[in-house]
Order: sequence, then C-alpha cells, then structure tokens
Amino acid sequence: MAAVFPGPRLLVLGLLLCALGPSVSRAGKILLVPIEGSHWLSMVGTVQALQQRGHEIVVLAPEASIHIKEGAFYTLKTYPVPYPKEELEAAFVSFGHLSFDNLPFLQRFVKLYKNAQENSARLLSSCHHFLYNKELMAWLVEQNFDVMLTDPFVLCGPIVAQHLGLPTVHFLNGLPCSLDMAATQCPSPPSYVPRLLSSNPDRMTFLQRVKNVLIYLSENFLCNLVYTPYEQLASEFLQRDVTVQDLLSSASIWLMRSDFVLNFPKPIMPNMVFIGGINCMSKAPLSQEFEGYINASGEHGIVVFSLGSMVSEIPEKKAMEIAEALGKIPQTVLWRYTGSRPSNLAKNTILVKWLPQKDLLAHPKTRAFITHSGSHGIYEGICNGVPMVMLPLFGDQMDNAKRMETKGAGVTLNVLEMTSEDLANALKTVIFDKSYKENIMRLSSLHKDRPIEPLDLAVFWVEFVMRHKGAPHLRPAAHDLTWYQYHSLAGMGFLLAIALTVAFVTFKICACGFRKCFGKKGRAKKSHKSKAH
Amino acid sequence: MAAVFPGPRLLVLGLLLCALGPSVSRAGKILLVPIEGSHWLSMVGTVQALQQRGHEIVVLAPEASIHIKEGAFYTLKTYPVPYPKEELEAAFVSFGHLSFDNLPFLQRFVKLYKNAQENSARLLSSCHHFLYNKELMAWLVEQNFDVMLTDPFVLCGPIVAQHLGLPTVHFLNGLPCSLDMAATQCPSPPSYVPRLLSSNPDRMTFLQRVKNVLIYLSENFLCNLVYTPYEQLASEFLQRDVTVQDLLSSASIWLMRSDFVLNFPKPIMPNMVFIGGINCMSKAPLSQEFEGYINASGEHGIVVFSLGSMVSEIPEKKAMEIAEALGKIPQTVLWRYTGSRPSNLAKNTILVKWLPQKDLLAHPKTRAFITHSGSHGIYEGICNGVPMVMLPLFGDQMDNAKRMETKGAGVTLNVLEMTSEDLANALKTVIFDKSYKENIMRLSSLHKDRPIEPLDLAVFWVEFVMRHKGAPHLRPAAHDLTWYQYHSLAGMGFLLAIALTVAFVTFKICACGFRKCFGKKGRAKKSHKSKAH
Repeated sequence: MAAVFPGPRLLVLGLLLCALGPSVSRAGKILLVPIEGSHWLSMVGTVQALQQRGHEIVVLAPEASIHIKEGAFYTLKTYPVPYPKEELEAAFVSFGHLSFDNLPFLQRFVKLYKNAQENSARLLSSCHHFLYNKELMAWLVEQNFDVMLTDPFVLCGPIVAQHLGLPTVHFLNGLPCSLDMAATQCPSPPSYVPRLLSSNPDRMTFLQRVKNVLIYLSENFLCNLVYTPYEQLASEFLQRDVTVQDLLSSASIWLMRSDFVLNFPKPIMPNMVFIGGINCMSKAPLSQEFEGYINASGEHGIVVFSLGSMVSEIPEKKAMEIAEALGKIPQTVLWRYTGSRPSNLAKNTILVKWLPQKDLLAHPKTRAFITHSGSHGIYEGICNGVPMVMLPLFGDQMDNAKRMETKGAGVTLNVLEMTSEDLANALKTVIFDKSYKENIMRLSSLHKDRPIEPLDLAVFWVEFVMRHKGAPHLRPAAHDLTWYQYHSLAGMGFLLAIALTVAFVTFKICACGFRKCFGKKGRAKKSHKSKAH
Repeated sequence: MAAVFPGPRLLVLGLLLCALGPSVSRAGKILLVPIEGSHWLSMVGTVQALQQRGHEIVVLAPEASIHIKEGAFYTLKTYPVPYPKEELEAAFVSFGHLSFDNLPFLQRFVKLYKNAQENSARLLSSCHHFLYNKELMAWLVEQNFDVMLTDPFVLCGPIVAQHLGLPTVHFLNGLPCSLDMAATQCPSPPSYVPRLLSSNPDRMTFLQRVKNVLIYLSENFLCNLVYTPYEQLASEFLQRDVTVQDLLSSASIWLMRSDFVLNFPKPIMPNMVFIGGINCMSKAPLSQEFEGYINASGEHGIVVFSLGSMVSEIPEKKAMEIAEALGKIPQTVLWRYTGSRPSNLAKNTILVKWLPQKDLLAHPKTRAFITHSGSHGIYEGICNGVPMVMLPLFGDQMDNAKRMETKGAGVTLNVLEMTSEDLANALKTVIFDKSYKENIMRLSSLHKDRPIEPLDLAVFWVEFVMRHKGAPHLRPAAHDLTWYQYHSLAGMGFLLAIALTVAFVTFKICACGFRKCFGKKGRAKKSHKSKAH
C-alpha cells in the first residue's frame, strides 16, 4: 500500500445519501417490554436513537423496578406486582454476596438453585400480573403499536406480542440452552460451537467436546424446567396450545448483542443482525470529579474497577484482600463500591458509588480494567482497547473471560480462590506486558472496523419491521418441518428402500440367470458324473 | 404510524460520519482474476468503485477474451492461450443454438455434455497457460499485491492466490454442487435448501424432497468429475497435495451476489456478505435513440427483451414464432437480437444489436421484461419493479424463473415447447394482470430497503481484507475438524459407551443385590421346603 487516498469520505457519503432513501421511515409507535438490570441498560441507547428518529416508545415494566425508571425519551407505563421494590433490591444484594460465598460445592449449588428459583418465581409472577391486568391490556390493544421490541430472556414480551398480533424484534445477548438457535432454526454443531456456561473454546480437546455434547444433549431437559411455566401461562392466556418454540420463533428480527471478535464464528441466519458493542461509540465528557482523579494519576494513569450493575458490594474479607492488591500497583484505581470502606484501602484507591465506566475506559490514561466480564464491560473494554483482569461471577461471564484470555487480551482469576498476590500480579501483567495491550488493540481495530454502526443497524431493522410489518422473506422454511423431515429421514429412507429393492431384484435376476446358465449344466454334469460312477 | 418525521437523514449522516473513521483505507493494489461472460460483467461496477477509492487494479485475462477488454479504471494484463478469440465466439454462438435445439433427451444430453467438456477443456488449458507463464508469474510476485479478488467458479484465481500468498475475496453468484457451502462450512440441509438446477422451492413436496436429497447425495461425485483436473494442476503447480476444498476454503470473504428476496432464507456464515443486486443502483441517462423509441411508444409503453450476454441470436423458426407473438401486444418491444431479421417482424418490434437493459428497465414506461432469467436480469427486474416473462435456457436460470413465478412476479415458459400464442398470452398476463406489478413492486421495495448499498458493502469488505490481511476472526473452527469430529461421532460414541457401561454395571449390581436379598432366602426356603417334605 502506497499513497494515502484523500477522498473516500466524500465518496462514501455520496453513496450513503443515495442509500438513505428507503430507510427514511414514518414515525411509528413502539412497544418495549424490557428485562430489569443490565439487559435493560443495554437497550437504552437504541431506545434513545429510535425516539430521536421521531418514534413514540412505550416502556412497560413492573412497579417494582430498580433500573427501569422514568426517562425523557420514552413513556414508562408500570403495572402493580405483588412484591415491593425493596425485595428486588435485597435479592440483588444477596445474589452478589452469594457469588462471593466460598461454600462447598453441594451447599453452593443448593443456595444458587434456591436463589434462581426465587428469581424465576418473581419474574413469572410479574408476567402473570402483567398479562391479567385487564385495564392495561385493553389500553395496549387501543394503542395500535407498529412493533414490539423485547428481550426474550423472559417470555412475557413474546406472549404479549402474540396477544396483540405485533411483529416483533428480539434484542438479546443470547438465550440459555441454545433456545435462540432452536427458535431461529440455526444449526449449531456442538463439535465447534461452545455451549453457554461450558467455558469451552471453539477448538476443543476431545474431553471438552464430550462436555459440550453432554451439555447439548441435556439442554432441552434443563430449559424445560425453567421455561415450561411460561408455556402454561401463555397457553392459558392466549387460549390455545403454545410452546416456548412458538413464542420465540415468531420474531421477525433477532438483534444479537454479539460480535465475532469476542464470540467464535459459527453458522448464523439471515434474520440475525449482529450489534455487539452497540453502546460503545456514544461517549460523554467526564465530570470534573473524574477528570480530577485522572489528572492527579500522573504518568501511571488509572485502573477502572467495576463488577457490574448487579454486584456493588462484596464480603468484607474479600474486599480487604482486593484492597491490599490494589495498593500494590502504581496506578490510581477507581473502584465502584457501595459497601463499607475496607480498613486497609491504599491511598491510590478511590471508592465511588457509581462511575462512568464507558467514558473512563475511553480515556487514553486508562491502563487496565478490572471487570466481572459481563458482555457490556467486555465490549467496552474491546472498543477502547483496555486490557482486562477478569473476575467472572455468574452466567456467561466465565465464557467471556475465557474468550478474552484465549485471545491474550486479559487474565482471568477465580474470585473465590484468588489471593491478594494473584490479583496484584494479574494487574501488573496486563499493564506492563505489552502483548496484552497489543492484542486488545488488534481486537479493537477489528471490532470497530465495520461498514455500519451497530446502533444504526438496530434502528434500521426495527424500522424495517415497522415498514414491512415483519420480515417474512427472511423466515426459513425449516419452521414448517418436523424433526424427521428436517433431517430428510423419510427421503433418505425412501431412497434407501429403492436402492435395496433394486439391489435385491438385480441379485435375484443375476442369481436366476446364473442358475439358468450354469445351474442345470452343473447339476447335469453332476448327475452325469454320478451316473458314470 | 402518524406524522412524518423530518430529520432522520441528518441524524443518520451524523452517525455515519463518526462511523467512517476506520473504513478509510490506504490505497492498495488489487489483483483481479475474473471469468469471461456475465461473471466478469457483474464485477465491473465493483472494480470501478475500488478504483475510485484510489486503489490500483490489475485484471488478468487470456488474450482470447470477448467481454474482458481494456478499461479506463484498471490495467489489463493478458497472457497467450492456445486458442483464438474466434473459437470462443463460435463456442458462445453454438451454445446459444444448442439452448434452442429441441432434440430428444439423450441426443440433447450428449450434445450438452460434449459442449461442456469442450468449454471445460478450454478453461483448464487457459489456466495451465496462465500458471506456467513464468514471466507473468515473476511479474506478479514482484507486484506485491494486497488482495486477490476472484470468481472461484474457475479455480485458477484461488490457485494463483495460494502461490502468491494473497488474502482472497471471492465474488460469485454460487458454485455448482454446493461447493461454496462446503468450502465455507455452511450447513445446507437438503430438506429445505433447494439444490442448484433442481427447480425446487424451499417448501417441497415429498417427491421434491427426495429429488433434492438425491442431488445432494450425488453432488460430490458430479463435481469431482469437473473439478478434479484443477486439483491435479494445483498440486503439480504448488508442489504439494491440494484439494478443491483447500483451494476454495482459504478465501477470507465471500461476496455472494444473492438476496433473500429472490433466494430462499437458509443458514449462512459470518464471512458471507450478501450483495445481490449490486449493479442495480447505478444508472445512466438513455441515449437519444432509446429515448426516441420510448417517447414514440405512447401510453402503452415498452417491453424490453434480451436473452443475456451469451445468447444474442436464435434459430430462425423460433425467432419467427417469437416475432409473431411480439406483434400481438400494443407495447413497443425493444429486442436485443443480432441474428437475421425475422420476415414476419411486426411494426411494434425494434431489433437492436445492444440495449442499455438496466436503464431501460428503470424507465417508468417499461411494462414488462422478457428475459432468460439470468441472475443479473432478474435483479435488474426486481430492482426496477418490472414484471417478467422468463425463458430460462441453462444453468441457474430455471431456478431463478421458478422462484420469481412462485412469488407471482412473472410467468415462466419453456422456450423449446412454447407456441407463439403462449408467449403472447404470457406477455398480456404480466402486463394487464395487476397482481404481477403489485408483487414485483413488493419484492422491489423489500430488496431496496437495506441499511447499506451492496456496492459499498463489497468495497468495504475488499478493503477490510486489505487492511487486516484477511479476516481470520470470521473463519470457523469447523475447518480443522474431520467429518466424524464435525458430527461429534466420537463424543457421542464415548458418552454412549459410558451410558451402556453404567447401565450394565447398575444392572449387574442390582441383579447381584436381588440374588443376595431374595435368591438365597428363596433357595433356602425352597431347600427348607424340600427338606420338610
């Protein structure tokens, strides 16, 4: 490559101006059924962009919500649920503590299971109170929405979409048990597509592959346990038999918060749109407080430390271990922590109740990012090229961490077992070993090099579904096949039967011909011989 | 949907300006190995756009080329081949005639096979003379190209790419025998993905599915016949064992001239980029001659008739039949035809040696399009919303025609069997039955409603491969698996063995326990009883 070409921006702009024609949409009405926590936070940018395009957005949420609040760019409509907001907050805190409880396996499993059961029951109850809120439902029917945008992790959105007959856009990171793959008819061979929670890479050893196949085989059973109550609820509410597959597979477009820089390449479907890193590009200037911290950090710069929206405080002993480790590096550490101040906190560590994570990571003086490796944090780290120390706690966080570690862009620690020394060493490694910065910068350049921004893609496809009342031309015919039709078993069997019949008839004819030609002669000769004796 | 929102263009422009950053590329050197005929014509727009972005493009072609000529926006480099241009021209004409020969099945098959064999031999010989042209090869090595852009329908480009160690972008409509699917590791279930040349829809009857499975099962064998000579040539030239799969699968990006408005939705891979209809948007004003024809056509408008770049004349009898039909409609027909003028040509029919097909189709007075249903023509028809009468001749044309017919956007005729009446009726149907216009307009609006123009996508991904020297993050790990690993046979077998062992051991233990608990007692009782007797 030689000289620098001066004019491509103008050229592309010209082409884009031409291209904008069909994407200009009439303003419409969007019904949004989100899920609490980081799931909701990941949608906010898209909601804002849709509102700026002139659309009216109604967000539906239970009265007891923590993160879903009134907003300037949407109308929040809440419905009563039989639990107070405080119960939800307490559940968040107890879940955070549970993530740090170093209990024996069985005890930990029982506690986690109980916790998951409580949360599931709360979500189901919330959904029940939503669906059977007659006044709300009547109001929704009246509104004549153009599209439903929902996170299908909880099936309440898809049930309401079916009730209102709305074309639907799903917005998600992924679903447990490969439900998203089943619902889109997307092949997902367990030989190289690692299963959720397996921590497997795409290039697996034999035993990793066995583990992956085992998870693959048990997925159906596991998810039935969690999602079957929604089948019952939906069938009762919609007054017809409905399966989880029916609820999910009716979506027109799947906006997947995934990017192949983080996730492994695998088959996809034409109605999947990849918007991983969707919230990364929008940046705000730092407040004076944070600018001050960064300026005071000198040549060493800062380290950003957050464990996400669900875990803001941790057990005291662990907090002290962490505080000790943070004191061993020359960087200033900005730690988002709402628990009580560890007594051994070093001078270089500043506790804050909240931090502008994305904007801090975007600052050139940020040297490392200590994260629970939730997908948002990981994409923000990739986008801004900040090497990471990852302390995965639950869900897909271990998978994310393994992926980043495999790519040489971070170090993963087991938060339950790590010592203060381990954390300090990991931090020094990702800050001072240049390869980590180089690797994350390479990922960053690949991730940001795309023909169109994920946010524009998301907005485009929501509007596309509004304009065309769905996207039926992207729906594969596989949806109409039974499993044995899908695998061509009948066709193969039919061909096999023909082949066997032909082989049998040919054999019979040959055998008969052979007998006619040689059989009598042979017998004749034999009888002739026997006569001669 | 209510009011019209005024400002989306500006907003999207703003976002796009931000997004343009990483896509600005340094000017580079592109080696282009195209294929004669419509394959080359489909690439020209992209070549021009790449040159306008400041890149230097070298096009390599045999001296005996018909469509590949010197061009203003690329450097043509030719190499000698042992056949003259006239031989190629004669082959095109004879192929055209063959398409219209209404011979008995076996005779037709033999003639087609012979023709295909001659063409294959010519292409292979051309490739041989390219590869063993030492001077040319030395020059190519010296040039330090950044990327190879090639149509992999003939494997010469991929062989040269391997020799020069160039990252490669494939530009194609599709490959026979699903070779493109195999090379990208893209699942393609024969139960709903119709095979090339099957004329099957995606929703098949049982017998159609059987036919599809049969083609699927025989694909490997059929394509081995055609492509094996390239394996030998490549292995000899590269001095290592190379398979067709090796040659094809090394491509970084596959630019597929396909769109799901025409083709049926099916699994795809992350390194496939869909650019169907890439050449549609660029339009030129009509010449005075053609403007004149259109203006003179009055309220009835015109019909555009072309059988593509390979067939410009047809047998006299068939030409007369067609001429008779064309005289029966009130529209002016512009017929691209280089053969001798049919004596019965009606006044409304104008023969031209060449016509600006795309620009004529874009004219609002164009009422119908008579086409051989090659992919270019079909996309131009869809793009401009012109209903079609389709006379498929060979290759994928029958598949294209069936798809358009299924969608109610055109009528298909068998060119060998149709009568003059059939053609006239078909024309009247697509012109006067409003449903055809409505259906093609619906397809057109879906086809043109996209977040980014196909030409921009093609340019972006060629430059992406130049910037990053490939796209390894989009290459699935499936490439490294054997077929039994891919299907998890070993893993499944291992789990089955464990399950059987556990079942066997459990059974043995239970049986043993049962004997211990009841066996002895039973026997004891029995012996006790017998003693008592």
